[in-house]
Amino acid sequence: MEKQKQKSAAVVGGGLVGAMNTCYLSSRGFKVDLYEARPDIRTMEIVRGRSINLALSYRGRQALKKVGLEDQVVQDGIPMYARMIHDLNGTLRPIPYGKSDQYIMSVDRRKLNETLLTAAEERPDVTLHFQHKLVSCDLEKGKLTFKIEPANGDDSLDQTYQRNGGEDVHVEVTTDLIMGNDGAYSAIRKHMVKRPRFNYSQEYIPHGYMELTVPPHNGEFAMAINYLHIWPRNEYMMIALPNQDKSFTLTLFMPFDMFEQLKTGDDVVKFFMEKFPDSVPLIGEESLKETYFRLPPLPLVSVKCFPYHVSDKAVIMGDAAHAMVPFYGQGMNCGFEDCLVFDEIMEKLDSDLSKVLPEYSMYRSPDAHAINDLAMYNYIEMRKSVNSRWFLMRKKVDAFLHAIMPRVFIPLYTMVSFTRIRYHVVINKAKKQDVLVDNSIQALMALAAVGGGYFTAVAISRHLDSIPGWLRDSVWGFLRGDFAV
Amino acid sequence: MEKQKQKSAAVVGGGLVGAMNTCYLSSRGFKVDLYEARPDIRTMEIVRGRSINLALSYRGRQALKKVGLEDQVVQDGIPMYARMIHDLNGTLRPIPYGKSDQYIMSVDRRKLNETLLTAAEERPDVTLHFQHKLVSCDLEKGKLTFKIEPANGDDSLDQTYQRNGGEDVHVEVTTDLIMGNDGAYSAIRKHMVKRPRFNYSQEYIPHGYMELTVPPHNGEFAMAINYLHIWPRNEYMMIALPNQDKSFTLTLFMPFDMFEQLKTGDDVVKFFMEKFPDSVPLIGEESLKETYFRLPPLPLVSVKCFPYHVSDKAVIMGDAAHAMVPFYGQGMNCGFEDCLVFDEIMEKLDSDLSKVLPEYSMYRSPDAHAINDLAMYNYIEMRKSVNSRWFLMRKKVDAFLHAIMPRVFIPLYTMVSFTRIRYHVVINKAKKQDVLVDNSIQALMALAAVGGGYFTAVAISRHLDSIPGWLRDSVWGFLRGDFAV
Repeated sequence: MEKQKQKSAAVVGGGLVGAMNTCYLSSRGFKVDLYEARPDIRTMEIVRGRSINLALSYRGRQALKKVGLEDQVVQDGIPMYARMIHDLNGTLRPIPYGKSDQYIMSVDRRKLNETLLTAAEERPDVTLHFQHKLVSCDLEKGKLTFKIEPANGDDSLDQTYQRNGGEDVHVEVTTDLIMGNDGAYSAIRKHMVKRPRFNYSQEYIPHGYMELTVPPHNGEFAMAINYLHIWPRNEYMMIALPNQDKSFTLTLFMPFDMFEQLKTGDDVVKFFMEKFPDSVPLIGEESLKETYFRLPPLPLVSVKCFPYHVSDKAVIMGDAAHAMVPFYGQGMNCGFEDCLVFDEIMEKLDSDLSKVLPEYSMYRSPDAHAINDLAMYNYIEMRKSVNSRWFLMRKKVDAFLHAIMPRVFIPLYTMVSFTRIRYHVVINKAKKQDVLVDNSIQALMALAAVGGGYFTAVAISRHLDSIPGWLRDSVWGFLRGDFAV
Repeated sequence: MEKQKQKSAAVVGGGLVGAMNTCYLSSRGFKVDLYEARPDIRTMEIVRGRSINLALSYRGRQALKKVGLEDQVVQDGIPMYARMIHDLNGTLRPIPYGKSDQYIMSVDRRKLNETLLTAAEERPDVTLHFQHKLVSCDLEKGKLTFKIEPANGDDSLDQTYQRNGGEDVHVEVTTDLIMGNDGAYSAIRKHMVKRPRFNYSQEYIPHGYMELTVPPHNGEFAMAINYLHIWPRNEYMMIALPNQDKSFTLTLFMPFDMFEQLKTGDDVVKFFMEKFPDSVPLIGEESLKETYFRLPPLPLVSVKCFPYHVSDKAVIMGDAAHAMVPFYGQGMNCGFEDCLVFDEIMEKLDSDLSKVLPEYSMYRSPDAHAINDLAMYNYIEMRKSVNSRWFLMRKKVDAFLHAIMPRVFIPLYTMVSFTRIRYHVVINKAKKQDVLVDNSIQALMALAAVGGGYFTAVAISRHLDSIPGWLRDSVWGFLRGDFAV
């Protein structure tokens, strides 16, 4: 058998998904070059502009597992078994995520990214190129042009600049596969948007986010460790995830106009004392005043598009393909699962890119759209519904039904976070289950009502012939709760 | 009282909406410059690239009326009182649009555009600039740069080119108000998309469209004149609108991959003979073969965005703000109503652009999004539902309910086409009416069922005490049709 020429791939973006794809493509025998606009985060002191921690769950772990990194990542994470609701009056209420052995895991974005980059670098035929910013591309032809960014202290690159007399240095690349993993504001996707009949949407929600810190108290975690803490306040909310260094990172989600109303440090403290009173001593008043004004709140965007590929040459994944609001904790998990799904399709179609790329677009897009929608739905649930009695009752009913029918009935959150059921199947299944639960609850209520009305009914039955049909019909309907349209 | 300095407006785009806005802004005392990339259509022999005729209805007419153009436009139009359904077997079935005196009107796009341009030109302080293509702009500052396009035979412009030695000629403009009316692929909107927190979506449907012609037969219309002819075939469809010259323009809507499957003239004729048999002698086989391959099918895009304005300087309207699929015949009507709504807000807020522009975005966007959705919904209804018995029964039930409750119950199509009820209110009202109609129909069916079951019930009632509650409950529920989930 003739040996095939080794294929090349250019991965654009050295974030979580780009680094993971580099591992996968190397395993499939590609010569992989990864291009990242920023300097190597492993050499940087401070990395700005992205959230600090993430919730790793089943899908992400399965993707890490296949490239042999699950154990290493998990040992740096902190399990979170439940939400911990902080009520306004200080009451704490845990709401489990699943069964007692099911948890999501708080992981440090930077640490995870470093782990992935180092793992990628150790694979065969992999080269990482930092400070390479994409300036133009021809997706059809697999051509990319990068500009080498100023080095800020990196000697080798400063020399490059000097050699070129201070002019821009450009690098041109031609490759068999362009892998666009360059995030929510993807440059590769911007080129796709200009192509004919490309579907695209970007939606900014009215909320922005801001990160604050709860430092360790007396060398220990200042709150219960194994929880994702939530302060749901309907129109806005705050959450907290634990870090390895025993601090918590708080994230405040709030409409931009509310952020803008807090103009002074005193405004901020007053607001927190009123709305998140138990958090103030944990953050510290001075730290709160200082941190609130250090950076402006950042926007949250939801991106959908179709298709994800151009001929047999280019494909986008991760936030580049489906940036989502962070309220289901699935952005990274979905991005990692993208890599795994792509690899599964490569396996199935024998790495024939002319078949793999269209198949990936067709197969993956309904799932990416579905988790995008679920994340948007949870944007309301997290800050609002968790406060309602109905939500709590529903969680208990779900847990009960799951316990008695573990394969038939699986709660929505469980399907999303603890299985690899395709996201679009999750939504369909959840809708059917909702009907089942609603009917069950109605039936229980009806049974109670009917029980109570039994003696009345017996009395009425003696005169049944004289009751008009529509009235009889209405009464039974009313008892069954049908009129709540 | 001090006289205010005259404000200036630059209208980008000389299509239907741009020309109408020029009239409105002139009436409000603006000095208006209209810039259009193409040559003056009034001097061109053939205008390419847009559909030939349009269905003018109430909203568009109201907007024309306020600038004094309704009568002139209407006298050039052809009333269409009903859809005329062409079944596969040749049966013709008219389905009225509304009451016997309600009609939509087939108008010629080019003629209408010329009428509007001429009307605009005659207004005070209006200048029209053709062959001015927008090349850059600063929306915040009200600055625009146009490149003068090659003239192709226009002497004055050819001289400009010669004067500049064949180099590009650029024109820079600074204005108080940029009015972006430059269509579905708007350059002004592209600048807005790059701004922070701008929501945007573009969705291409799988269908493309292609125009064909039915010429006059023996100097007369070849089909019944006062109808919008429809050949609904579920997955695809064809429509026809009458023209002043006694021809009809046919538009075939079909998935792109179906268009591509017809590779030869014979394929096309065979397809038409099978699917639209009665149309073939009307079009003529030779003409069909020739026209089908003259131009490729064109895509159909649905665009939504928010907001429509930038500070007090720029606003987009018409297709630039909300291109929609053509299946409700509201693209032009909605664009014209945009102009009218903007003018009404100008009146209310005393032409204070810093208030008018945000108010316009807030007020108009829910309506534009609503008609966008309705048009997409009709994309299915037009080619599919009109074939179903349910659709026909529903149209009759609607007409009956509207006749007995003319103010309370208004059919969806009537609200859209024959009123100025805000589009988003139309949707809400239609949803409520749907519940009403469904309940009425169900009630009728239930009444019949209950009537039939009455004797049974009487028999059972004698033993009611011995029937368990849940069973009794289920039986009544079944009779009422509740189990059709």
